[in-house]
Amino acid sequence: MTGRRPGQGTNQEAVRRHNLGTLLRHVHGAGSISRSELTTAMGLNRSTIADLVGQLEALGVTEQGRPVGGARPKAGRPSPSVAVAADGPYVVAVDLGVDRAVVARVGLGGRLHERAEAPIPLEEAEAWQVGGIVAGLVRQVVAAAPDTAPLVGLGISVPGLVRRTDGLVRLAPNLDWHDVSFAGIVLAALGLEVPVRLGNDADLGALAEHRRGAGMGIDDLIFLSGNCGVGAGVIAHGHRLEGAGGYAGEVGHISFDPRGLDCHCGSKGCWETEVGGYAIARAIGLPQREVPQLATALAQWEERTPELSAIARSLGLGLSTIVNIFNPELIVLGGYFSALYSLCADDVHAGLGERSLTASFDAVTLSVPGLGQDSVLLGAAEIAFEALFADPEAALGAAVVDAHGQLAV
Amino acid sequence: MTGRRPGQGTNQEAVRRHNLGTLLRHVHGAGSISRSELTTAMGLNRSTIADLVGQLEALGVTEQGRPVGGARPKAGRPSPSVAVAADGPYVVAVDLGVDRAVVARVGLGGRLHERAEAPIPLEEAEAWQVGGIVAGLVRQVVAAAPDTAPLVGLGISVPGLVRRTDGLVRLAPNLDWHDVSFAGIVLAALGLEVPVRLGNDADLGALAEHRRGAGMGIDDLIFLSGNCGVGAGVIAHGHRLEGAGGYAGEVGHISFDPRGLDCHCGSKGCWETEVGGYAIARAIGLPQREVPQLATALAQWEERTPELSAIARSLGLGLSTIVNIFNPELIVLGGYFSALYSLCADDVHAGLGERSLTASFDAVTLSVPGLGQDSVLLGAAEIAFEALFADPEAALGAAVVDAHGQLAV
Ligand SMILES: [Zn+2]
Ligand SMILES: [Zn+2]
Repeated sequence: MTGRRPGQGTNQEAVRRHNLGTLLRHVHGAGSISRSELTTAMGLNRSTIADLVGQLEALGVTEQGRPVGGARPKAGRPSPSVAVAADGPYVVAVDLGVDRAVVARVGLGGRLHERAEAPIPLEEAEAWQVGGIVAGLVRQVVAAAPDTAPLVGLGISVPGLVRRTDGLVRLAPNLDWHDVSFAGIVLAALGLEVPVRLGNDADLGALAEHRRGAGMGIDDLIFLSGNCGVGAGVIAHGHRLEGAGGYAGEVGHISFDPRGLDCHCGSKGCWETEVGGYAIARAIGLPQREVPQLATALAQWEERTPELSAIARSLGLGLSTIVNIFNPELIVLGGYFSALYSLCADDVHAGLGERSLTASFDAVTLSVPGLGQDSVLLGAAEIAFEALFADPEAALGAAVVDAHGQLAV
Repeated sequence: MTGRRPGQGTNQEAVRRHNLGTLLRHVHGAGSISRSELTTAMGLNRSTIADLVGQLEALGVTEQGRPVGGARPKAGRPSPSVAVAADGPYVVAVDLGVDRAVVARVGLGGRLHERAEAPIPLEEAEAWQVGGIVAGLVRQVVAAAPDTAPLVGLGISVPGLVRRTDGLVRLAPNLDWHDVSFAGIVLAALGLEVPVRLGNDADLGALAEHRRGAGMGIDDLIFLSGNCGVGAGVIAHGHRLEGAGGYAGEVGHISFDPRGLDCHCGSKGCWETEVGGYAIARAIGLPQREVPQLATALAQWEERTPELSAIARSLGLGLSTIVNIFNPELIVLGGYFSALYSLCADDVHAGLGERSLTASFDAVTLSVPGLGQDSVLLGAAEIAFEALFADPEAALGAAVVDAHGQLAV
């Protein structure tokens, strides 16, 4: 990526802001980066980089880090690296599961600071109730933030369809939500004005695994989420595949067996009915009401039973459709699929091999997440930071400087 | 899209070439475009646009067109529009079908000039034989080109998997080709050095329908090719989905029915076995050897038989997987699917409605191609022109100025 620069007929100020954000995005990606790496990455000269770095330091978002040293000292005094500020801006990330909400304060560089979680009881799953639970957790993690650190925004992951234009939750089947403006509900419960972004859980898992997990440097990847239902986040050519409305990646409802079971979506024989949480729970004798805890239960399970083998094979068979359609380099198996894959990798590979085109089968690798169970949470942090990379000064202007104090009421 | 401009620390010459190509891309897209539209589209000022237009005219790739007039004359003398040069650079596009090759000379603006075609007899389908047939057709269409018009390159559509990096044909199942360097074979048969680009037929259909067909202005679309087998070209967010190796979009091998028929790909129950050319041919009593002519046969067919209805419903059922995965705004039904859809639209819609998620079903429209049977051919022309838009001067330097004469030997 090369930076844009001032020139004839353009708004130099807009270009400066763009470059400032792009530089910050690089620092955020690396945590700490040398000036010469920035020069190369952005295609700008050293003095322009120095200017921009000075501006970011003055804004309190980056600070001088230790020089990035090689094995041998080079001629001259090494420049300090550019590092994310320890007490700089932060976001609050929310991973809304089906039975619990996990909330964390996340700094630049993807640093996970305080974390809090709370169950979402089935009888309290209405949007306003969940909004109250989430607001309480947000207060908790923000209370520990440094006084002066600005809160840039909230990023919320939802297990459902999120409209691209405005973040409306069109459908969250396991919460039974339809057309819910969850951002507004959380803000009302917080009594705070701060930017909020929402995203689909699998999309956010893909984003985080791409930026700082198993998919770093890989531009064509799929993150398969196993979180009661089944969904996929797709990174194609380095960009998130969203679809016209934002609903792309609903692979749980791939038509898998025309004579299969009824699916909650109204269709029949969806892949999810064969490999989703309820099917796996049946296979290990876990009561259906405990399906939200399946990832944990399956991580402790040790036996590769014929029932699990069969599901793992169906997982591979369905993945072949994904492989034939997307020709990805990597598929990251998230949620309960991570444990299933660890137990029955051979069965997954067998199913995949049976139905994939050779050229695409040869190109793909399967993997568990690089970020463990935090992919989705860190992805929610990433979308909350986006505004800061688009225009750091504007985003800091919209940030809440004393969230700490305001929320302590 | 905004143009890049000269500035500190950059190569002004590279920026000029980039802008020159971008401007030409706009003229090519529109055929003829006003200077004020160019100013807006490129974010450059009028004098820079005038400079660039002058350079393109000097290169012989554009010429002055009629002023783009509104209903009412505006104050002052209207500027002439910028139009593609009538005798300017051209490409040769090749649409390699299973039973015939169609070759056309195509000018800027997607103008189809001379066209020639020839059958590919089953017993002459080896790559070197087909290369000879194609070379003969290329000679034919180039013979009619103006003496001075430069041949920028060849674009070839192949019904199979084309490797992104180098255009190697990994697999063309209906031609029984494996790992064929078809570009080299055609050039050897021609005895000519000219740039060649290859692409998959469905990908190229999607590209052309997006640029100048039913999908103009639509950034999330699918082109479904029906050409013996079944494939899809995907445009997501305005960009072609290629996948890691270039093999994305092989929707013919979506796993459709686990108890289904064996597929030539080695798998079982692929969607193609239910809705592909051989299945449709059986339904209308067309001999299997005539499947390559199915699009024509089906276009003359008038009866919506129960057999065709059933296939159309399966078409819709399989499309639901595509809709759930991609959330496209438009699906263009190419090849024999165009005629099938015209006959049995209701059945396709019924199958699609039965299995799609509401949010995505509501967002999608189905359509026949805007370019008729020429989508793939015009897509092949588009990839051949790409080099000209990346850097017009370099591409004209690599072009063959007297292809006319050289090939007339
Ligand atoms: Zn379903
Ligand atoms: Zn197949």
